[in-house]
Amino acid sequence: MEESRTAYVAVVGAGADVTPAVLAAAQSVGALLARRGAVVVTGGLGGVMEAACRGAREAGGATLGILPGADRAAANRWVSVAVATGMGELRNGLVVRASDAVIAIAGEYGTLSEIALALKLGRRVVGLGTWEIHGVARATDPAAAVELALG
Amino acid sequence: MEESRTAYVAVVGAGADVTPAVLAAAQSVGALLARRGAVVVTGGLGGVMEAACRGAREAGGATLGILPGADRAAANRWVSVAVATGMGELRNGLVVRASDAVIAIAGEYGTLSEIALALKLGRRVVGLGTWEIHGVARATDPAAAVELALG
Amino acid sequence: MEESRTAYVAVVGAGADVTPAVLAAAQSVGALLARRGAVVVTGGLGGVMEAACRGAREAGGATLGILPGADRAAANRWVSVAVATGMGELRNGLVVRASDAVIAIAGEYGTLSEIALALKLGRRVVGLGTWEIHGVARATDPAAAVELALG
Amino acid sequence: MEESRTAYVAVVGAGADVTPAVLAAAQSVGALLARRGAVVVTGGLGGVMEAACRGAREAGGATLGILPGADRAAANRWVSVAVATGMGELRNGLVVRASDAVIAIAGEYGTLSEIALALKLGRRVVGLGTWEIHGVARATDPAAAVELALG
Repeated sequence: MEESRTAYVAVVGAGADVTPAVLAAAQSVGALLARRGAVVVTGGLGGVMEAACRGAREAGGATLGILPGADRAAANRWVSVAVATGMGELRNGLVVRASDAVIAIAGEYGTLSEIALALKLGRRVVGLGTWEIHGVARATDPAAAVELALG
Repeated sequence: MEESRTAYVAVVGAGADVTPAVLAAAQSVGALLARRGAVVVTGGLGGVMEAACRGAREAGGATLGILPGADRAAANRWVSVAVATGMGELRNGLVVRASDAVIAIAGEYGTLSEIALALKLGRRVVGLGTWEIHGVARATDPAAAVELALG
Repeated sequence: MEESRTAYVAVVGAGADVTPAVLAAAQSVGALLARRGAVVVTGGLGGVMEAACRGAREAGGATLGILPGADRAAANRWVSVAVATGMGELRNGLVVRASDAVIAIAGEYGTLSEIALALKLGRRVVGLGTWEIHGVARATDPAAAVELALG
Repeated sequence: MEESRTAYVAVVGAGADVTPAVLAAAQSVGALLARRGAVVVTGGLGGVMEAACRGAREAGGATLGILPGADRAAANRWVSVAVATGMGELRNGLVVRASDAVIAIAGEYGTLSEIALALKLGRRVVGLGTWEIHGVARATDPAAAVELALG
């Protein structure tokens, strides 16, 4: 498994009401990150989080799910290691802090909070069809997003 | 002092490099909130946070400062009650959660994280010369901001 | 109200199933702390927390309630300023960190966690009929407890 | 790797000034937990935490390190997946919450805080030469401790 020098990259985005195209992008991002040896960090739930985890696991990678609730059983089935925080949306800050870079895919307010906090903490933030915020490096496809995050 | 039914309104914005006009607006917002009986919640540090606290205290109100560091002495002198969290920027989430509404004044990424988290949590968010995010009610002056936050 | 140099003293103990003698002790501790100008910090709920807050408020003091839940309405009516953390029992750590000293009155496991964390953080810890842990200064009555906490 | 139904067991104890016998016990506990398929959760640092992680990893298991600081590089080399929380000692609560059971080995105040919080949260707590607290199941050797934790 991983050592502490392994890159940890958060993949953030909506947990529900996600289009097939967004899910496919998230799954590709997860797979590409895993092939580069990165640990994929997510909020551990559905939608973009689940797709990214699935991509990573199917590519042989490891995934860390940092859950809002206190019950680990809420983690999607592609989470390798789950942390049930019981901190609700405050766990968004933990997702960001635990990661070296953040790839945001589409997403709503929760995603925006993670983008903003990551920029505040000086993390590299890459956007794929997400909020347009100054400081976010925009990618047009999963490969470019992963390259920007790890490059 | 206050009862639990008192309104708690966060005033968020940059802690440094703030223009005199922004500081004046923050101070007015603090004063107007205090006159309406609201507790002013901030991150407890300088800039917009300090100006809002000053306005509130000079108007006879109470202010709650939720600090990122573990040392209460970092609170600005206009904080009535300080909470030293030692949680760093994760305390932004506590500022929002502790409040019924959020007034954002100018601000950078930290402010944006608070706006986003507040919208995610369903709080009323009012903006005064700040990030333009769908869901934020825009005000043109302190009186309008306070009216939107408490109305 | 208070400045940042004011002493903040946590009063910790059970939130339910508390004897009248323990409640009376907590109320006295709260009153004595308030007369000495200290802010009384509690977990904001019932039992020992409520009695300490009541004592402090009736003596003209201020009380800070750091709640486990996300709803400020859960605070007891003697809380001056409430912080709804939504962090569950992790808020015990915030109660301790926010305080300069801790007075533990009777109490169960939650109280023990606060005693231990306070000792870990180097806070002065005073016990009144509570867990006997090395490092806790034992007091025999409220006046002695407050003296030990503030002395 | 693991699914969400995998058992997560925290191994808690001092991070420094630990005797060789305690380190050996921690390493055995880690190894035995790994052989039973459990994820070993620790605070991610040295002493008992490191020994438990080493035992688990050498036995082919996975370890989750929940660090107090904001820098993942502080994790010991046997941590599989590290979470840098930046929450200081408040992370003790996360270690407990993330786990189904806790094995405490020797330890000081930090360990006591984890024991107390785990009992408060209703977790099974097993002690090996640690604080004697009502509710902790006492084991006399690593095999018994693991059996009590997972049994």
